[in-house]
Amino acid sequence: MAESANGNYDIHTFRALTFFDKTSSFASGADDPRAYLERCLDVINERESTVQAFSHLNIDAARAAADESTSRWREGRQLSAIDGMPVGIKDLLETRDMPTEMGCDAMRGNFPKRDNALVSALREAGAVILGKTVTAELGGSHPGPTTNPFCAARTPGGSSSGSAAAVAAGMLPAAIGTQVGGSIIRPAGFCGNVAIKPSQGGLNRGERQATSMSTHGVHAGSIEDMWQVAIEVACRVGGDRGFPGLRGPMQTPDATRPSRMIFLETQGWEELDEPTRQLMKDLLRQLSDAGIDIITKADDPRVNLLELAIADARRVASDITAWENRWGTRNLVDQYPDGVSERAQAILRKAEGMRVADYQGLLAQRATAQAAHAALAGVADGIITLACPGPAPLWGGDQPGQPLAPRPTGDAVFNYGTSMLLAPSVTIPLLSVSQLPVGIQIVGQREQDAWVTSLARWLLEHATPLAA
Amino acid sequence: MAESANGNYDIHTFRALTFFDKTSSFASGADDPRAYLERCLDVINERESTVQAFSHLNIDAARAAADESTSRWREGRQLSAIDGMPVGIKDLLETRDMPTEMGCDAMRGNFPKRDNALVSALREAGAVILGKTVTAELGGSHPGPTTNPFCAARTPGGSSSGSAAAVAAGMLPAAIGTQVGGSIIRPAGFCGNVAIKPSQGGLNRGERQATSMSTHGVHAGSIEDMWQVAIEVACRVGGDRGFPGLRGPMQTPDATRPSRMIFLETQGWEELDEPTRQLMKDLLRQLSDAGIDIITKADDPRVNLLELAIADARRVASDITAWENRWGTRNLVDQYPDGVSERAQAILRKAEGMRVADYQGLLAQRATAQAAHAALAGVADGIITLACPGPAPLWGGDQPGQPLAPRPTGDAVFNYGTSMLLAPSVTIPLLSVSQLPVGIQIVGQREQDAWVTSLARWLLEHATPLAA
Repeated sequence: MAESANGNYDIHTFRALTFFDKTSSFASGADDPRAYLERCLDVINERESTVQAFSHLNIDAARAAADESTSRWREGRQLSAIDGMPVGIKDLLETRDMPTEMGCDAMRGNFPKRDNALVSALREAGAVILGKTVTAELGGSHPGPTTNPFCAARTPGGSSSGSAAAVAAGMLPAAIGTQVGGSIIRPAGFCGNVAIKPSQGGLNRGERQATSMSTHGVHAGSIEDMWQVAIEVACRVGGDRGFPGLRGPMQTPDATRPSRMIFLETQGWEELDEPTRQLMKDLLRQLSDAGIDIITKADDPRVNLLELAIADARRVASDITAWENRWGTRNLVDQYPDGVSERAQAILRKAEGMRVADYQGLLAQRATAQAAHAALAGVADGIITLACPGPAPLWGGDQPGQPLAPRPTGDAVFNYGTSMLLAPSVTIPLLSVSQLPVGIQIVGQREQDAWVTSLARWLLEHATPLAA
Repeated sequence: MAESANGNYDIHTFRALTFFDKTSSFASGADDPRAYLERCLDVINERESTVQAFSHLNIDAARAAADESTSRWREGRQLSAIDGMPVGIKDLLETRDMPTEMGCDAMRGNFPKRDNALVSALREAGAVILGKTVTAELGGSHPGPTTNPFCAARTPGGSSSGSAAAVAAGMLPAAIGTQVGGSIIRPAGFCGNVAIKPSQGGLNRGERQATSMSTHGVHAGSIEDMWQVAIEVACRVGGDRGFPGLRGPMQTPDATRPSRMIFLETQGWEELDEPTRQLMKDLLRQLSDAGIDIITKADDPRVNLLELAIADARRVASDITAWENRWGTRNLVDQYPDGVSERAQAILRKAEGMRVADYQGLLAQRATAQAAHAALAGVADGIITLACPGPAPLWGGDQPGQPLAPRPTGDAVFNYGTSMLLAPSVTIPLLSVSQLPVGIQIVGQREQDAWVTSLARWLLEHATPLAA
């Protein structure tokens, strides 16, 4: 890593934008949602030219919505705890008042006048839909223009690039992301966000039902805002078709001190840079010194079984998703041969070389990983591992005449394995390397979203962040 | 039932159009796909003005595709056993060469240049996509213009109205339908088709992932063509995301004589007309006389448990689907206030009165029915019940000034319960009342599509059809 490309993130002093702690002043009249929005717009005005978090902004509509929210708070008839919260929506989800272009040339000008179910829930709750945030093309790995707010030479991660960066830059207290392999947890880790990738089916995906591992989730500056957005959505539009959806208290779960955590290496540990690896070990020692049992594959054969079951996760998760996106991408390429990146077309070609039996085999492999995870239900309170493989990598764009960089938004190697479990995962910013954030993820059993949040909250409130 | 509205269906002499038994003459040159298509077009030309099975026909493209198929067969390089088969596609599925209007005014002119995954599989297999078949609006209960081919005063059933009718009229050897509550099995029963509603996730639904009980399926004139279409699709594009998809032999499974069948009454039995009830009893007696054990809720407490678990199926299945369609329909109504029928809007209003907890309760109820069904896995070879509540009802359109008829395409009361099981169901034409078809459905455990087909084939080949 070039020293010149170090970041300006100080994990000990950084404070992200929060909303939950402002609403009491909305009620008293000392502050109001319109003023809150204007402060966000000031930050956007100052930083957007470098960060480039947004693909569209709808400032007039946001101001009107914030004014309405201001009146509601003044009159004590606010619609929810997030009434007036400015929120960004990843540009994969349809919004009736903004285009949905998915970071893809073939989708330029796409403007269905529809709201994704999650967006409609946010509007019902009084949230202010301020803009669409940049996504890597079609939620894949071909990057948009967004830069890491702590170092413009680096990626914010992807595919929820703009949502992660907008929160990290203090432009928004929360933004919506989506994840298949690692598109929420990894950019949140690279950007120092708190974020939740719910249990599969946790938040209603509306029209976006394309892939079996995709979830909507929330990036936020605080665990309180993260949970509040998630639960306000879930209580209005529920989960995906056939799923009960995210459940839990209507306020952020109280912190719970874990007594035993599984440290999962995943496929990423062997490939990890040395400073991050050492820092992670230090964090585990810190937790152990605080009386939390840390168990690894060396301690319990069931942990080893899970490690083995996800040892090939990068390939398994990528190929499952490539297959599932195959027909949609084929239709797009046939219609717009020049409208889809070479990165996406290479994945399409690979998918078109797969057979049904290959996909069935991958599903069986995923099911064994889920069984291995379920077998750990009583063994520990949850899993702890990295959210991303060290700090965000440098990214200066593809170089003419050179092969395409394989992972311009970073490697989801710590995420594929946990994504395959269809389990809830919460990222928290506990580490920093080269003055850049490195997130930790806490993973629990399926449907235990509130429990995972309570563990993550305890760690956020009680663990000492570590920097290298 | 008015005597004047009796049908002209003679179950003992009726022969539906078949394809599987013609391909040997394609290979020899005695017949060819283009000639086959022209015979279909002759029937369409003769009957379509009354039957109204199609929302769109693409005759030029079909002729070109049939000519290509003719060349392939002549040269021994046919793409599959259904190469050259004319197929109709329910107008809910996207087709790149025809509009997709979903029987809904709000969707008039909708023409995405995309193929549903199943449609792309059919094209890869060499099938001739002849037209889009009429669907009840958005796959619901508001009917299109299609009439029952055996009595024009009656409904063909719905929502796969055009697919069922086109096959029954001899216009096509096979057509694609979709089912949530009873939209394949019921119209197939009313029209004397053979049809399969696969296990949930059995055939790749492509862009149509909206509801948790929806499946693509096949209407056909024969069980051979039914299976061949299903397996040719499944071996190319597999099942839904996360599902292994329909599996089985590449030719129609051999007939298997059942040794024990469960007769399931479902919510429909008590409400059934007397002639159909007596005929069903006669059929069960015939099977029993042939040495097949028939067990009912009186014989086994596990059967009783399943009957109880689906006793409220009409409400449970309807409300699950209403909730799942809620946001999509809301977007459509907001955009096109006059473009959605009052029938559909009434369901939307009901869905908007539901809470997340209501939906969660319905899912739990559905899960208990599935558990009750799974507990019967070793008890019998499969379930036998009616596919529809007697013959197709009369339908003359809504009457001005009168309340909307509640079920213009007939009642799915025999289908909701089996749909809730997410299990495979095959319809076969074994009964006739008032010279109209009444189908029987055979249901098996999940993923046992081939087994259910083999049982249905045995019954088709060995049971004596009964008429009243």
